[in-house]
Amino acid sequence: MEHDCIGQLEVPANVYWGIHTQRAIANFPVSGISDGQHPELIRAYATVKRACASANEELGLLEPVKAEAIRQACLEIESGKFADQFPVDVMQGGAGTSANMNMNEVIANRALEILGHARGEYTVIHPNDDVNESQSTNDTYPAACKLALIDALGPLAEATKKLARAFHDLADKHINDVTIGRTQLQDAVPITYGQEFHAFATLLKSDLVAFDRVVPQLAQLNLGATAIGTGICADLRFRKSAIDHLARITGLPITAAPDPVAAMTDMGAYVATSAAIKNLAVHLKKAADDLRLLNSGPRCGFNDLNVPARQAGSSIMPAKVNPVIPECVNQCCFMIFGMDVTVNWAVAEGQLQLNAFDPVMVHELLTGMSLLTRAMTTFRVNCVEGIEINTEQGRVYAQSSPSISAALNHYIGYEKAADIAAEAVRTGRTVREVAGERTDLPAEQLDEILDPIRLSRGLGQTCREHLV
Amino acid sequence: MEHDCIGQLEVPANVYWGIHTQRAIANFPVSGISDGQHPELIRAYATVKRACASANEELGLLEPVKAEAIRQACLEIESGKFADQFPVDVMQGGAGTSANMNMNEVIANRALEILGHARGEYTVIHPNDDVNESQSTNDTYPAACKLALIDALGPLAEATKKLARAFHDLADKHINDVTIGRTQLQDAVPITYGQEFHAFATLLKSDLVAFDRVVPQLAQLNLGATAIGTGICADLRFRKSAIDHLARITGLPITAAPDPVAAMTDMGAYVATSAAIKNLAVHLKKAADDLRLLNSGPRCGFNDLNVPARQAGSSIMPAKVNPVIPECVNQCCFMIFGMDVTVNWAVAEGQLQLNAFDPVMVHELLTGMSLLTRAMTTFRVNCVEGIEINTEQGRVYAQSSPSISAALNHYIGYEKAADIAAEAVRTGRTVREVAGERTDLPAEQLDEILDPIRLSRGLGQTCREHLV
Amino acid sequence: MEHDCIGQLEVPANVYWGIHTQRAIANFPVSGISDGQHPELIRAYATVKRACASANEELGLLEPVKAEAIRQACLEIESGKFADQFPVDVMQGGAGTSANMNMNEVIANRALEILGHARGEYTVIHPNDDVNESQSTNDTYPAACKLALIDALGPLAEATKKLARAFHDLADKHINDVTIGRTQLQDAVPITYGQEFHAFATLLKSDLVAFDRVVPQLAQLNLGATAIGTGICADLRFRKSAIDHLARITGLPITAAPDPVAAMTDMGAYVATSAAIKNLAVHLKKAADDLRLLNSGPRCGFNDLNVPARQAGSSIMPAKVNPVIPECVNQCCFMIFGMDVTVNWAVAEGQLQLNAFDPVMVHELLTGMSLLTRAMTTFRVNCVEGIEINTEQGRVYAQSSPSISAALNHYIGYEKAADIAAEAVRTGRTVREVAGERTDLPAEQLDEILDPIRLSRGLGQTCREHLV
Amino acid sequence: MEHDCIGQLEVPANVYWGIHTQRAIANFPVSGISDGQHPELIRAYATVKRACASANEELGLLEPVKAEAIRQACLEIESGKFADQFPVDVMQGGAGTSANMNMNEVIANRALEILGHARGEYTVIHPNDDVNESQSTNDTYPAACKLALIDALGPLAEATKKLARAFHDLADKHINDVTIGRTQLQDAVPITYGQEFHAFATLLKSDLVAFDRVVPQLAQLNLGATAIGTGICADLRFRKSAIDHLARITGLPITAAPDPVAAMTDMGAYVATSAAIKNLAVHLKKAADDLRLLNSGPRCGFNDLNVPARQAGSSIMPAKVNPVIPECVNQCCFMIFGMDVTVNWAVAEGQLQLNAFDPVMVHELLTGMSLLTRAMTTFRVNCVEGIEINTEQGRVYAQSSPSISAALNHYIGYEKAADIAAEAVRTGRTVREVAGERTDLPAEQLDEILDPIRLSRGLGQTCREHLV
Repeated sequence: MEHDCIGQLEVPANVYWGIHTQRAIANFPVSGISDGQHPELIRAYATVKRACASANEELGLLEPVKAEAIRQACLEIESGKFADQFPVDVMQGGAGTSANMNMNEVIANRALEILGHARGEYTVIHPNDDVNESQSTNDTYPAACKLALIDALGPLAEATKKLARAFHDLADKHINDVTIGRTQLQDAVPITYGQEFHAFATLLKSDLVAFDRVVPQLAQLNLGATAIGTGICADLRFRKSAIDHLARITGLPITAAPDPVAAMTDMGAYVATSAAIKNLAVHLKKAADDLRLLNSGPRCGFNDLNVPARQAGSSIMPAKVNPVIPECVNQCCFMIFGMDVTVNWAVAEGQLQLNAFDPVMVHELLTGMSLLTRAMTTFRVNCVEGIEINTEQGRVYAQSSPSISAALNHYIGYEKAADIAAEAVRTGRTVREVAGERTDLPAEQLDEILDPIRLSRGLGQTCREHLV
Repeated sequence: MEHDCIGQLEVPANVYWGIHTQRAIANFPVSGISDGQHPELIRAYATVKRACASANEELGLLEPVKAEAIRQACLEIESGKFADQFPVDVMQGGAGTSANMNMNEVIANRALEILGHARGEYTVIHPNDDVNESQSTNDTYPAACKLALIDALGPLAEATKKLARAFHDLADKHINDVTIGRTQLQDAVPITYGQEFHAFATLLKSDLVAFDRVVPQLAQLNLGATAIGTGICADLRFRKSAIDHLARITGLPITAAPDPVAAMTDMGAYVATSAAIKNLAVHLKKAADDLRLLNSGPRCGFNDLNVPARQAGSSIMPAKVNPVIPECVNQCCFMIFGMDVTVNWAVAEGQLQLNAFDPVMVHELLTGMSLLTRAMTTFRVNCVEGIEINTEQGRVYAQSSPSISAALNHYIGYEKAADIAAEAVRTGRTVREVAGERTDLPAEQLDEILDPIRLSRGLGQTCREHLV
Repeated sequence: MEHDCIGQLEVPANVYWGIHTQRAIANFPVSGISDGQHPELIRAYATVKRACASANEELGLLEPVKAEAIRQACLEIESGKFADQFPVDVMQGGAGTSANMNMNEVIANRALEILGHARGEYTVIHPNDDVNESQSTNDTYPAACKLALIDALGPLAEATKKLARAFHDLADKHINDVTIGRTQLQDAVPITYGQEFHAFATLLKSDLVAFDRVVPQLAQLNLGATAIGTGICADLRFRKSAIDHLARITGLPITAAPDPVAAMTDMGAYVATSAAIKNLAVHLKKAADDLRLLNSGPRCGFNDLNVPARQAGSSIMPAKVNPVIPECVNQCCFMIFGMDVTVNWAVAEGQLQLNAFDPVMVHELLTGMSLLTRAMTTFRVNCVEGIEINTEQGRVYAQSSPSISAALNHYIGYEKAADIAAEAVRTGRTVREVAGERTDLPAEQLDEILDPIRLSRGLGQTCREHLV
Repeated sequence: MEHDCIGQLEVPANVYWGIHTQRAIANFPVSGISDGQHPELIRAYATVKRACASANEELGLLEPVKAEAIRQACLEIESGKFADQFPVDVMQGGAGTSANMNMNEVIANRALEILGHARGEYTVIHPNDDVNESQSTNDTYPAACKLALIDALGPLAEATKKLARAFHDLADKHINDVTIGRTQLQDAVPITYGQEFHAFATLLKSDLVAFDRVVPQLAQLNLGATAIGTGICADLRFRKSAIDHLARITGLPITAAPDPVAAMTDMGAYVATSAAIKNLAVHLKKAADDLRLLNSGPRCGFNDLNVPARQAGSSIMPAKVNPVIPECVNQCCFMIFGMDVTVNWAVAEGQLQLNAFDPVMVHELLTGMSLLTRAMTTFRVNCVEGIEINTEQGRVYAQSSPSISAALNHYIGYEKAADIAAEAVRTGRTVREVAGERTDLPAEQLDEILDPIRLSRGLGQTCREHLV
């Protein structure tokens, strides 16, 4: 039985949370997903609390023995031990107050146990007065959210890197295998499969750079700003001390926001993170789309390559195998595009001194990051690593494109080259064949001029550097 | 150990699913949410299979004993008994093939048990040849998805109705309590709280009408169209028979799409459903936003009303209570706005004879509907039903608005009325006070002219009808 | 020189507008697009004013001679005569007050001229007291917006109908020309080009039905509700009279909203209209996407058909011709998808008794409708009507697909059919060729079983009906 | 009369464009907005062409006299002289080929005039062979688009800076004027108007930083990559030379993309630009929303301040003045949120070696930037600079908030402070009044502890630095 400003309420005896959590459980039964299902968020929040305990201790605001117990409780939470003690719905109203109080209560109760007290003996260690000392939800919750996002960037970047590597490896096997480049889906000029798949790797590498770029934005925190950024009720020195401790613990380039009032409502770091994830999704969609196109066929499509058969494609059409993994990736990307819009709504609906909608932002971003992390893993393992390229098909394509006649421009002029292209289209022959009849150039020179591999190497040097 | 066109694979002995499901589990570990977590989808798919079994039996394509066993298995699934037997990720690629094969396998294996055979004895009842007879994924999966959406509309409508009722009840208590109407957040002219909250009920009622309107679209199915709408491999009479059986079973106005090829790629029913849900979210957001505004204060805001205190609002500011339930509702609405965009992506990315992205559509729509259903329940129970209106505050507002001078236009002209309004603004007095000095109208008549309750009744009749 | 409650301002002598318009010109120089550039809006607003003048006359609130002059002025505006007299930016703040006052002023001044008075002699006919009698911006502006949308649905439907017709005509020419149906971009089973393009026509026809369905929503108006829906300052009988006059003038099924307070903030008609337009865009995107795919090649793509060459495709690749018209259509669809999101924002940001953001909604919807109207026209004239189908290519595709073996299931069993399919894939031969060797079926029967045109006719009856 | 690969066509005698432009005019009559209406795009494209001419001259690919004439023609175009010569619709299909050819044709014809030749004498200077030498649409058009965006960032940043300055100036006037801070619209603790408006300035300053950050991404170009990134038909040295010339001309940090094949399809710079603009819109929306809230009243709202009266607010309610400028700003923000979604669509729909949808991206981004630039100007001039703060109202608010009791926590404990707050709420008195009766603290000390200005200064140092 605990009480708060609203009244009394029974709390189960076997849990670590208290009345604030208990009320929140009843208030927000909407998504069925709990804070505890975002381990990065729980971990980050406990880390923030640990740093704050140390800052409070340093400033003489918290007795060392209490600080130590709180820190130990935090470490246990960070290790994943109390994942089931954070039952509040991720879509909670209240700007994160429930998440904060849930964390304060679990830490207090676990710290009490550590010190040999019974849970609930808040006169010894109080969720608000001790664990939450010098803090408010409005400064610690966004801090935890942002650190959680940085945390989630880790596996996301790792999966991105591995997928980039897989495309790179695939490309390396096919540096000398030409095919046709297609612009606006029309036959254009020769390219190698190596160049094509290196490009996918390059796009993913640009995402890694983008992830790095959002970290400093996410690491700019507002600890010590308390309720509205004026720092009411907090020791002036707390801001610096807490930031220092947190930087030391996490090894991250954590800084204090220069304008604490503005920082309270600035959602720019979420917008930037969402944009970075969205751009990754754009790149993944491109890869998935292109693979589905190149895999089209086997007889009536492009048939440039075969993605691995992962499951039977049809219950009635024998031998049909579909690109199910890229299709799964596509759908994950559609989720991300929706996520970006939901985040847009949440960030743009703050009012006056607070934006109360961090919970949905961090939930959507963490969910999206996890989704793409796993989508990239299945994309790599179940698709990209098993792609088989039909090099012979590619070679035929590269030679048969009428646009290859562009290479003759320098030798016989654009007009005559265009005539040869037109003739090739009309007769179904290759440009090489027609050019052999229609020009005086020796066969050997024609072979060289129209050699697809040579044509694909126009910017060879630049590409080679890149390929290294 | 089972086999398919790709090879052999071990399937756990204690499950009802088979090799197709087993492969899909491995292929799509992305969202961590399984088809089984959408009970409407599982239920609807089993119902479709049950109707198809009857149609096949009727047309002599399936032996009565098999048909009966299949139907019984379907009924058990529909009752919720095998919820854990549908483990494929909701974001599966393959246009629903895995969901279909999962369903075929579970039905086949359960039907085998019912007939006294061991699971896996597919020579007796085969997932494809018997359960899937005359069907394809491309025609049954969308059918199941659409029926699932109709199913989910039930609780959504129920929650909508109850919330509308709650607003109606609140309004009925305050039919004669005036306050100020505000346009563009500026004081306008008097309105009653009754009118204000009846309007919320009216908006929700319009959503109920909209739900009804999408049902016929969702109930237009494409059974018998098989792979691409040409009906290849299916008995011509199957289409009509299956539709008839399904209509009889469900009691729904199920029809066959007039152009089966077009129906294969038409996602219009999803677009319409998403729009209907979105419009509900727009109405909920309006209610939540308005309640947060009207609840602002207690001293420095509108203070028209108090939403019930559901939990302590701040860890450092005593006595602060926040509108946490409306905030939760707001966030659910942001999710829906993102859902609508994700659905937009999925519906617009079909290619040629199929749109392969039904899985993400139905997942998003069902998730969104469930979210709003629960959000409306907590909104009603934890907020709307406990709202207390500060009727005295409203009365003061209604009298103090300078705009009330509009009522004098007919008696003293617009110009003079405007002067009175300006004087009232300047001096901080009410229009009634100033008018008493500045006009020759008798006090009694002035009282009547400027009576807020009378002013709020301009369109009284119309409103009264509505209120009934 | 005119004056309002803010002060005095010079208005050019040669214009019909007055001080309210003049102020608005200075206030909103943001988009550079004026109300006058939406002729449907100007036309509709003048019609609304005309109906209101008649209602006021009928109720004895406006002298017949004034009413007649006002009506004549309205008719002139409706004819397009004063298009340059509505210079206020479409993104105006103020919930349409500037558009209303601009209309009131132009009508008043033109009516004054008609009666032989000088412009500005407002003592004779006053923009507010006479033209705006019984009205407010909050009831007339949305009415004008909605009528404008109905108006714009006309040309949109006309263009839709013509494009549907063009696809229908193309289909009719190819009822017996088979090709391969592709699902998930993989070769599936035969279909005719006729079926394929009839499907496009069917989708567009469903849009026409959807347009019809939004009209009653758009035709539900709130005239007489005045400022906040309470009807303050308006004669009670005005609502019915104005609606009647407007219905008579327009021939539309205009009704009065049952709850005038709710109607003031209900944006459901805009949401529904936006969804209908979006679904049309989804259909157009599908057609454009599919045509770009089918047009891919000429050597290294699908090459099912050729869209007409409209311009040279490349400055360096001779003979390259790109599907520029479908690409233009695609981009217009992307605009519509953004439009839908902008409308979502505007409809969901109303507060209390008003949503002040109609201007951006109606601007976006009218712009989007006009864009699609014109996009469909160029799509039809410059692309669809000139499409040439490579029927020989389609025939080869239809025969070469391994999935065609599905047709053998009934004769030799699924397993054996699958073997034949596999062999065909492996050897590059057709299913017909392999089946001739591997089965005992007579050649004639095999030809019939595997006849693509027969296979595409599975649901023949249904389709035939549709095609009529 | 000119000809191309499609045939012959008449081109008006009095224009500078040629057959390619003429065809495009007929092909894309959809939006009614021409390339010429984006002066930044025309200017940037001419600059690119000028740099390419110099590179070609340097590499001996273009005679100096021709190069000089081309450069002079470019300079004239850059000066705005031929704005009416770029009539192709901004929504053109063809990936910008029409824009490129339009530019090539106008430059060629003007250069011919400069050299004393007649327009159309392409044997002297040819649009393709000379002006377009070493280039393709696929490399120059995106280059022009990106430079145009950098160009448009100039006025956008300038308007942002000025608006930030205006908020800063407003804040500076009110550094010592307290009011109540509100979180979740509930009374929280004191803040100064200075802090509140400095925060707006801080948010806008963060946008300036973000603009700077996208420039290097936009300045990474792909000149010399020609059709698909392989550099076919281009001199290998051209890439470096063109980049060098362009960097010299523009003074921008222009670089060559490291992977030319990837760069051909990477839309990351557009995504980043769109996100930066969107975040600015989020900040503007916040400012507009907050001002509308703070301006609410005058009697029945917050009434913290008055935005300047810009126009009469109502045709029937005398003296009503609405916040029309912030409402206009809001609507512009909704447009931007839609823009971001349209850009998302366009960037994610590339296929294989090209994304053909740059035209809609650059059109939307330039339109959005221009819209916000002008919206910020009217926001500043017609609203922010004229805001009048009701400092007396703010002072009353700051003292009356019950949450101010938080300041007593340190002296009498949280529990007793909470009691005082509760008593203040119940009785309608201030915390100061109740505390005077209920505590032993001397009046002077109480005055100091509860002094709002002191409470708003918790993080004073930090803020002061910021304010400087």
